Amino acid sequence: MEENSREDNDIVIEGMMGYERKDSGMSVDEYGAMIKEPLLVKNRINTTSQIAIVGANVCPIESLDYEIIENELFKQDWRSRKKSEIFHYVVLKWTLALLIGLGTGLVGFFNNMAVENLAGFKLLLTNNLMLKDKYFQGFAAYAGCNLVLAIAAAALCAYIAPAAAGSGIPEVKAYLNGVDAHSILAPSTLFVKIFGSIFGVAAGFVVGKEGPMVHTGACIANLLGQGGSRKYHLTWRWLRYFKNDRDRRDLITCGAAAGVAAAFRAPVGGVLFALEEAASWWRSALLWRTFFTTAVVAVVLRGLIEFCRGGNCGLFGEGGLIMFDVNSAKTTYSTADLLAVIFLGVIGGILGSLYNYFVDKVLRAYSIVNERGPAFKVLLVITISLLTSCCSYGLPWLSKCIPCPAYLEERCPTIGRSGNYKNFQCPPNHYNDLASLFLNTNDDAIRNLLSSGNSKEFHLYTLLVFFVAIYFLGIITYGIAVPSGLFIPVILAGSSYGRLVGMLLGSLSDLDVGLFALLGAASFLGGTMRMTVSLCVILLELTNDLLMLPLVMLVLLISKTVADSFNHGVYDQIVKMKGLPYMEAHAEPYMRHLVASDVVSGPLITFSGVEKVGNIYHALKITRHNGFPVIDEPPFSEAPELCGLVLRSHLLVLLKAKRFTKQRVMTGSDTVRMFKAHDFAKAGSGKGVKFEDLDINEGEMEMFVDLHPITNTSPYTVVETMSLAKAAVLFREVGLRHLCVVPKTTGRPPIVGILTRHDFMPEHILGLYPHIKPHK
Amino acid sequence: MEENSREDNDIVIEGMMGYERKDSGMSVDEYGAMIKEPLLVKNRINTTSQIAIVGANVCPIESLDYEIIENELFKQDWRSRKKSEIFHYVVLKWTLALLIGLGTGLVGFFNNMAVENLAGFKLLLTNNLMLKDKYFQGFAAYAGCNLVLAIAAAALCAYIAPAAAGSGIPEVKAYLNGVDAHSILAPSTLFVKIFGSIFGVAAGFVVGKEGPMVHTGACIANLLGQGGSRKYHLTWRWLRYFKNDRDRRDLITCGAAAGVAAAFRAPVGGVLFALEEAASWWRSALLWRTFFTTAVVAVVLRGLIEFCRGGNCGLFGEGGLIMFDVNSAKTTYSTADLLAVIFLGVIGGILGSLYNYFVDKVLRAYSIVNERGPAFKVLLVITISLLTSCCSYGLPWLSKCIPCPAYLEERCPTIGRSGNYKNFQCPPNHYNDLASLFLNTNDDAIRNLLSSGNSKEFHLYTLLVFFVAIYFLGIITYGIAVPSGLFIPVILAGSSYGRLVGMLLGSLSDLDVGLFALLGAASFLGGTMRMTVSLCVILLELTNDLLMLPLVMLVLLISKTVADSFNHGVYDQIVKMKGLPYMEAHAEPYMRHLVASDVVSGPLITFSGVEKVGNIYHALKITRHNGFPVIDEPPFSEAPELCGLVLRSHLLVLLKAKRFTKQRVMTGSDTVRMFKAHDFAKAGSGKGVKFEDLDINEGEMEMFVDLHPITNTSPYTVVETMSLAKAAVLFREVGLRHLCVVPKTTGRPPIVGILTRHDFMPEHILGLYPHIKPHK
Repeated sequence: MEENSREDNDIVIEGMMGYERKDSGMSVDEYGAMIKEPLLVKNRINTTSQIAIVGANVCPIESLDYEIIENELFKQDWRSRKKSEIFHYVVLKWTLALLIGLGTGLVGFFNNMAVENLAGFKLLLTNNLMLKDKYFQGFAAYAGCNLVLAIAAAALCAYIAPAAAGSGIPEVKAYLNGVDAHSILAPSTLFVKIFGSIFGVAAGFVVGKEGPMVHTGACIANLLGQGGSRKYHLTWRWLRYFKNDRDRRDLITCGAAAGVAAAFRAPVGGVLFALEEAASWWRSALLWRTFFTTAVVAVVLRGLIEFCRGGNCGLFGEGGLIMFDVNSAKTTYSTADLLAVIFLGVIGGILGSLYNYFVDKVLRAYSIVNERGPAFKVLLVITISLLTSCCSYGLPWLSKCIPCPAYLEERCPTIGRSGNYKNFQCPPNHYNDLASLFLNTNDDAIRNLLSSGNSKEFHLYTLLVFFVAIYFLGIITYGIAVPSGLFIPVILAGSSYGRLVGMLLGSLSDLDVGLFALLGAASFLGGTMRMTVSLCVILLELTNDLLMLPLVMLVLLISKTVADSFNHGVYDQIVKMKGLPYMEAHAEPYMRHLVASDVVSGPLITFSGVEKVGNIYHALKITRHNGFPVIDEPPFSEAPELCGLVLRSHLLVLLKAKRFTKQRVMTGSDTVRMFKAHDFAKAGSGKGVKFEDLDINEGEMEMFVDLHPITNTSPYTVVETMSLAKAAVLFREVGLRHLCVVPKTTGRPPIVGILTRHDFMPEHILGLYPHIKPHK
Repeated sequence: MEENSREDNDIVIEGMMGYERKDSGMSVDEYGAMIKEPLLVKNRINTTSQIAIVGANVCPIESLDYEIIENELFKQDWRSRKKSEIFHYVVLKWTLALLIGLGTGLVGFFNNMAVENLAGFKLLLTNNLMLKDKYFQGFAAYAGCNLVLAIAAAALCAYIAPAAAGSGIPEVKAYLNGVDAHSILAPSTLFVKIFGSIFGVAAGFVVGKEGPMVHTGACIANLLGQGGSRKYHLTWRWLRYFKNDRDRRDLITCGAAAGVAAAFRAPVGGVLFALEEAASWWRSALLWRTFFTTAVVAVVLRGLIEFCRGGNCGLFGEGGLIMFDVNSAKTTYSTADLLAVIFLGVIGGILGSLYNYFVDKVLRAYSIVNERGPAFKVLLVITISLLTSCCSYGLPWLSKCIPCPAYLEERCPTIGRSGNYKNFQCPPNHYNDLASLFLNTNDDAIRNLLSSGNSKEFHLYTLLVFFVAIYFLGIITYGIAVPSGLFIPVILAGSSYGRLVGMLLGSLSDLDVGLFALLGAASFLGGTMRMTVSLCVILLELTNDLLMLPLVMLVLLISKTVADSFNHGVYDQIVKMKGLPYMEAHAEPYMRHLVASDVVSGPLITFSGVEKVGNIYHALKITRHNGFPVIDEPPFSEAPELCGLVLRSHLLVLLKAKRFTKQRVMTGSDTVRMFKAHDFAKAGSGKGVKFEDLDINEGEMEMFVDLHPITNTSPYTVVETMSLAKAAVLFREVGLRHLCVVPKTTGRPPIVGILTRHDFMPEHILGLYPHIKPHK
């Protein structure tokens, strides 16, 4: 049982509590036996519906402590804090923001350069073989390169850091909401995310590097904030100020913004992305620091691109670091134009929400394969890679050759890697328009789709084939064990859809087809991701044209509204599917019918202000609770009263130090002198004192330890009759991990239970009260 | 005493409480006498330092109730809520957002058109007289027009709506923080704000129409949200859903964003302004609705400008609705360029913080004059108007005539109203560069300063004179009884400063002087307003050039950092000076040394669950408390326990209905049947049942009334030993008006006191604990 409960994630178990122990006088072991039953019941409620989906090897999920633990040690530290220390802290904060910007900017650039060179080499090789009419060898070279790169990416993901697969944005979003999935920001994840993303994108998958960049930025921020990695002997001692979840959260918000800024060269868009999609708590001061970080990213990228202009970066420079030129000199729109745009938005919203629906289904199907082990993951990747290669190389054969248009600035057919007019199998002076889209990097394909002026560049039929292929390739690619962003697939599908609609409606509206393609991309983005302002600004920064702002806004608003009536945004969906207990900003309506005590369940483990070591040891052993209420009892107080809350991690440090006494006496001042506040600072995930590190002998088990110095004497409390909805608002707005529920009437024990994140999850509440209708 | 306490603002008095009444068995009248002393002490602490400044005729300040009052009536209403009602509510929310966008867009356009026509007429008149060499008549016409317009604006402000003076942004900011200054969003304020701003700007004052537009947007939102104005018989009954402070806050956030969007034609900038500067609470859903509102504004403006292109709007179209064209085709910067920009930012930051310092001093000086009455206000406006006219007309005489440059696209000297090359006193084919800046609307002057290409267009000396004049005119103009925005004066001063620096450093840097002017404006904006992302986006949208983004970001970051080390942002300063109790997002460091019970003071008025009517009547009479704890006592409960909190406004409605009983019995279900939740909905400010409306006879005074149905049974509580800092975080993050402090130990009365906004104000806390060092 103990091993079993250890396997489960802590938030599931934190929910159980009650107050029987002290009253019934059971030993901790008996008590351990007693709680088996409710524990199992609870697990059934949660694991079957939610957590089972992520697979057999469930990763432990930790909640984060954003609350300031105001115990005696903290207060002592606070009182003795010198002005110079505060100054150092501020300087460090900004230095870290600078370093995050620099790091993310460099990685973003490196990522782009590597992709451009790898993919460029592959495409040139294929092209050269095709020019010599060696079509089969061309396919072999193309598919072979793709396969090798895909296997490399998959092997990294499957064997080194499984957490690096996928977009990473949902996990970062959950982290910033207070949920730490296992090793999601670990250095190994960072490494795999960077190289896996490079190989995956270069392998021709319909994936983007944007989501992975966000995750990369967050990982870099976490690495810097933790003072390096102890595992790899990279630590800086002076970063101890940042050893808490609060400051780490801020750094990771900066990192996520820097990631978007680096991916799209969109500094303002990055800030807005962090604000609108990623962060759950926001402060004005953070806005400013995030802005600084993204500005640094922009400067770094600009400098490096300048450096590359001299041809120092291999094939980089022809494409890479997307910046599209869309021409919309037209500033007045007719009613027909607007109707066309509204139509585009509505259909885009429907297709976007359908995309989410399919992604969800495919992810659930894949998780069954992926659970079987790393080898199966790699096999799945190989399958998808071959399928993608066949589509990319095979489908262009369906397309007819188009004679090159006269009077063209570009060369036609294109020589080299990127460009609008791929020759493929066509005779000289002809181009294959489908090959221009498929046999290109994704960035170049988007650039081609957004190109304005020549509305005849692509056949209707070509666009239709490309749209259908990319729409479904995008859906089946997300979820394989490769770092895979969703932005680029969605933009690709959206812009081909938009251009298609533009051509179909060409007679009605005189907007440019390139502009239609952009609006199509906007409608798909709005329909899948459901962001508004940040997408709008990102698109503006990508296209460098403010005049199309009203149309982009219109399309985004329409497609989001339409899609919202069907399902949730794709990131929210993935967060939910992964079983991450995400606290929504608003309370669910049915919570108004419940009060706090309705969802709190027993039994509860509490400690006395001065507690027997053995009791603490056993409580830590049999549960994975992270917070324990401390009750002061006579003779330390007149009646039992709630002294506060101790954290598991603090108890472990205290027990490790073995400052015990034979008698039940308060030794607070002694402890305060012995420890410093940062001895209890939160180590990075997976570090710090563990239960296994404790080595307490029989004699010490009978001794006492004073918990007062490490007890947070200001825990947030709600009365048991408090409406659950209002308790949820408090929990979420203040960013809590534990919320104490106190009795309303006097003469009862001073604490009824503790509410944790898990107790607010709809699955938990609706499991307890099946008769409640969720939407009432 | 009663009358006296009535004069003070409620938040001052809400602080007093205690629990003596029930125990000592005093009658309410004796009790009323008893609380006199602490009341006066309290008042002394606050009024002298803070509130006195705004003048003798102190306006009452109300806190807003953002908390959902979960009483029985609410729960009943919630249970019986139909799906169609929720749907109506959502549709209404969006309809209101649409209407706010439409209204603000129309007003913004009307404002611009009126200003352009009024100022244009004035300038043409002056110009024509000057052309005939009638210089004195020219001055008379110019100064006369200015004076008439100024007196009109001042009279409106002084006699009809004093709240309309000034920028309005600080008040809107305070409102969104939970502080309702008297009639700040009233219909009369809206009227005066619109016309006062038009007259003020047309009168040639160094004021902008941007701040007033924000206030206007907020007023429009409030008017719509209140279901019209009952005073003017414009009400819509179906808006009753929005009769609460929570929904009103959301609407007003939309209104503020719409104001910026209309002022600058910057929809994204508007959203970001609302987010960064105006709003204290923010939700993702609100981001989207705000974005929709600003999109509507953008569409309305675009449509109207299109309409005016045919010359339908008089003199509008030559200037108006600022959209500057800055040319920065250069995308690479040398080190010298960057150093120049950094220098610009540092000095801009210093000058910006100095600007704030002077504005504060001048405001304090003016408030002494303004307190004396409306006539003095008008006199002050007349003085400043004459001074401004003298500067504008007189200073250009110091400037030498410059021969018109050859090869110019524009006509030189300028014919008509706006343009770069004003003839003034010069011979033909010459222009007076200082007159081009002074004898223009502010928008046109900025456009001239930002014009690129010709770096010799303005003399160094001219720019210096203009900069100094505008810097000080801007300072002395803010604070007079005219709606006056701060954006334009700051941009004017900043861009002349920037262009000046650009000319001085011209040999070192090869950035354009127009770009320098823009960066100078950015540095001043950063130095005074201390916004970052929103200013950046507003400047982008104004200039329609994304390539200068990195430089603008750099300058903003530097100037804000520099200025922050001297003082606070100008809006924060004004909020503080007006004595508005603004809750900061972070707790002050010294609050960690205090606990909740340290700042709660007695005595406290509480009610029984079923209370004698007379007691309630007298409590309402002698205090202006807005929340009263309700205690259940035997026989209704076993021991005294906290039942919840009733609001003053709810008590008034209940007493007005006169459903009293002879005996002390619970009649809850009866009451629930009698009332509907919206009978207790919050009316607009100044409306609803007042104490004077009650008419209770002697017999009724001895009867009882059941308070349970209107008692909020889920008030937020903190234990008395809770750290004040953490209580402040709760208060601010959840958006409370009352926070109940409960005892830690049992056997005491169930409530210790109530914390209100005022109890968290530094003035209050430092008044109670003078030995605390504020920055420790």
